[in-house]
Amino acid sequence: MAVQHSEALNKFKETIHKIKSYEEALGVLYWDLRTGAPKKGMDHRSEVIGSLSGDMFKLSTSPELGEWLSTLEEKSTYSELTEIDQRLVLETRKDYDRSVKIPPKLYQEYVILSSQSESKWEEAKEANDYASFQPYLEKVIDYTNQFIDLWGAKETRYDTLLDQYEPGMTVAQLDGIFGGLRSQLVPLAAAIAASPHQPDTSFLRQKFDKTAQKEFGLYILNQMGYDFEAGRLDESAHPFATGLTPGDVRITTRYQEDDVTNALFGTIHEGGHALYEQNIMKSLIGTTLCTGTSMGIHESQSLFWENIIGRSRPFWDSYYGELQKKFPGQLDASVDQFYRGNNIVQPSLIRIEADELTYSLHIIIRYEMEKLIFNGGAKAADLPAIWNEKYKEYLGITPPNDAKGILQDVHWSGGAFGYFPSYSLGYMYAAQIADTMEREIDGMWSLVGGGNLLPIKEWLSDRIHKYGKMRTPSELIQSISGKPLDPQHLVTYLTKKYTDIYKL
Amino acid sequence: MAVQHSEALNKFKETIHKIKSYEEALGVLYWDLRTGAPKKGMDHRSEVIGSLSGDMFKLSTSPELGEWLSTLEEKSTYSELTEIDQRLVLETRKDYDRSVKIPPKLYQEYVILSSQSESKWEEAKEANDYASFQPYLEKVIDYTNQFIDLWGAKETRYDTLLDQYEPGMTVAQLDGIFGGLRSQLVPLAAAIAASPHQPDTSFLRQKFDKTAQKEFGLYILNQMGYDFEAGRLDESAHPFATGLTPGDVRITTRYQEDDVTNALFGTIHEGGHALYEQNIMKSLIGTTLCTGTSMGIHESQSLFWENIIGRSRPFWDSYYGELQKKFPGQLDASVDQFYRGNNIVQPSLIRIEADELTYSLHIIIRYEMEKLIFNGGAKAADLPAIWNEKYKEYLGITPPNDAKGILQDVHWSGGAFGYFPSYSLGYMYAAQIADTMEREIDGMWSLVGGGNLLPIKEWLSDRIHKYGKMRTPSELIQSISGKPLDPQHLVTYLTKKYTDIYKL
Repeated sequence: MAVQHSEALNKFKETIHKIKSYEEALGVLYWDLRTGAPKKGMDHRSEVIGSLSGDMFKLSTSPELGEWLSTLEEKSTYSELTEIDQRLVLETRKDYDRSVKIPPKLYQEYVILSSQSESKWEEAKEANDYASFQPYLEKVIDYTNQFIDLWGAKETRYDTLLDQYEPGMTVAQLDGIFGGLRSQLVPLAAAIAASPHQPDTSFLRQKFDKTAQKEFGLYILNQMGYDFEAGRLDESAHPFATGLTPGDVRITTRYQEDDVTNALFGTIHEGGHALYEQNIMKSLIGTTLCTGTSMGIHESQSLFWENIIGRSRPFWDSYYGELQKKFPGQLDASVDQFYRGNNIVQPSLIRIEADELTYSLHIIIRYEMEKLIFNGGAKAADLPAIWNEKYKEYLGITPPNDAKGILQDVHWSGGAFGYFPSYSLGYMYAAQIADTMEREIDGMWSLVGGGNLLPIKEWLSDRIHKYGKMRTPSELIQSISGKPLDPQHLVTYLTKKYTDIYKL
Repeated sequence: MAVQHSEALNKFKETIHKIKSYEEALGVLYWDLRTGAPKKGMDHRSEVIGSLSGDMFKLSTSPELGEWLSTLEEKSTYSELTEIDQRLVLETRKDYDRSVKIPPKLYQEYVILSSQSESKWEEAKEANDYASFQPYLEKVIDYTNQFIDLWGAKETRYDTLLDQYEPGMTVAQLDGIFGGLRSQLVPLAAAIAASPHQPDTSFLRQKFDKTAQKEFGLYILNQMGYDFEAGRLDESAHPFATGLTPGDVRITTRYQEDDVTNALFGTIHEGGHALYEQNIMKSLIGTTLCTGTSMGIHESQSLFWENIIGRSRPFWDSYYGELQKKFPGQLDASVDQFYRGNNIVQPSLIRIEADELTYSLHIIIRYEMEKLIFNGGAKAADLPAIWNEKYKEYLGITPPNDAKGILQDVHWSGGAFGYFPSYSLGYMYAAQIADTMEREIDGMWSLVGGGNLLPIKEWLSDRIHKYGKMRTPSELIQSISGKPLDPQHLVTYLTKKYTDIYKL
């Protein structure tokens, strides 16, 4: 490689490392804000986040970076790069072309706004006061619309947002996928509702000591292979996972004393995200490839662990005894009752508490609302009413208040429009991954039933985690299952599971 | 003001705000490292800290900042500045002249090193393994020596370091102060040792539940006027306070289950630091004046609360009953016994557990060692032996191991050479401040005895805290007491206190 080319490579990589440093610092600042940062410091913290994000943004949109990219993209130079550096050039180019269209000042304003908006959302949810949050949401929508204008609308304006989280995904595709899903799941849901074999869930609703819940959550994380020397578990209003670097991947959960499994499934879910980030190969550390390849694939990991493993019968065959020991005298249901009780299908108000079947309806509601906002011009003031109507239409229930309605999710407050569909994609990827895994790991369900989850974690790390962003979602799912994403796996999985539970 | 001058002022202030943003981000990163950040992420975190510190350093040494400073220092412009902006120019000039002498690369290397070194120190202390820490300490000393070379040695090389923490302080002055202190305290200590009235401390050494200790600490912080909406209490190996912004001032403590007051006095100490930072006037927020004016004055606030208030008889007249309630059946000593037991004078190994009288000997040892390192060329390898010899000489005791000897303090690992004398200065300032306060607050000790600490906090905020760096240490002590620092106040205070306790 010519001297000026290898100099470009060094400078390019130095800049990438710097960007990654800013990302980690910002990751800690956000984590801190959500895990108990003092209230009175929040406004100043927003300015700090704005300042750092602005500097990071300047770095990632600098003309120099553009020049180094162009140099490294020259065919003869590119071919001499390592596989990692090639991917780094490709990914950086995508981000660069997207980011240079946003004026730095606008971006910094937006970062400050979205940080404030998240704090306000938390207060508004607590106080069940949508009105106090509405002006912030309105502004976040305005900024997002400005970004769409700057990036340029794809097929529809909302397509531009979808593409951020699941590259290449479109409204046309999603309308098809969600339509197909609904048409198959609705009859299944109807059959379930009509079944005389409704699970008993009453035993799940007692007062369960928080400390014991936490201990059991830590125990299960340990069983999953979560590395506590490379992470920690905290509490926050909305559970999340944050991967700062593979050596520091943190998760949070939220305990509810009247429910023995709510926090647990949240913990397993975030643990699934965390395993992804903890097991990315060392050679990617310090680069922007050192993260999950898409939100959909990330959600596939959390949902795989939460639902396919955590809500399976073999899982509870193995761990129910341990749970009973944590709550002496409280859990006298049989493992069968317990398993069935944790898999009840029932329309409910809160997305993160929904069952695997109706979950997709929660997503479809949000997806349709996001389309209304960005393709239909719906205003923040209209959203609570639209929300409540859609819940009535799709799930047959109406939220008693906004805290249990439109204020339940953090996403919109931080401007993450277009993210929700990733959850449904995650379900589909997860079912497809499980299908391959069942064929590749000998006696997979016997392992789960015997309390040996580590071969599963190893398989996932080997087939998915280690690659970070070295493979795109479609490359990954192809390499794992030998074919592209196929929603039918999810339908098959759900049909089989609920046919058994509800004796259909 | 001419247009170009007001433009210089705006840009100057914008840069100061940015520097302050980096400081807050770094403050959170350090806080996080010390309060439970996962071990495996520490090396990468050091790089992140290095990267951000490097950028902050570049900002604070940029040629543009130098030009804006020069513009604002022009007499006609300077005279038009607000009082705050004038002080900001003065303080920034001092830092600027100091910082521009350090090459950015050297500074960034040093930041990474000192962050790694702090982590290694924590491990080494835990494992009682000085050898594993020694190469890091040696490097930190090397870098510090390079800095002295770049800054230029003052009267002695060590003077250059002292000046960082207590501007204007010199070896010549400290030799005098410490000499005078020793000559008066040593006979007092001898009289105490010979007294037949030795306090009983056996009742302090039981097993005291950590949760109850924490609750009592939180209760006392509340009594002191610490604002929990602008702070939080966590645990760390070495207690510290960190003022990110007045709305976010955090403290940590370390609980020992075999000691009922150790963590409490640590908590009160850090609480004293925190009150300082929480009560700086709002107009200084976001500027580099929004912090304590010197380490000595900062320590005066922590030591005032810890010792002069927290170890006073009226304090325990008021709060001992509450403490007894927290540990039912465990504290049957009378308030007099309890008060005296918490004021025992006894040579001991650990500085932060030392009594008010022998404390200064711990400082003098560190002061003399720092002089040996920077004026005498002592090497890291020699330090444990020197440490142990000096403890034998000054306190008559020898540490059984390095964990209880040279590894006990975090300071040197982070390169804070020249800081220790601030603690002794803090004692002296505190005694002098208390002397004025007793005359100015009517019935001050009756207030303490009646459990009303808020007038004290208000007085300190009004006379000290609110000014931040708007007044220098000498301006402050002069404005409070009408005279310069006078060590005699400390001697008088200690003599009075111990004459009573030991019935001399």
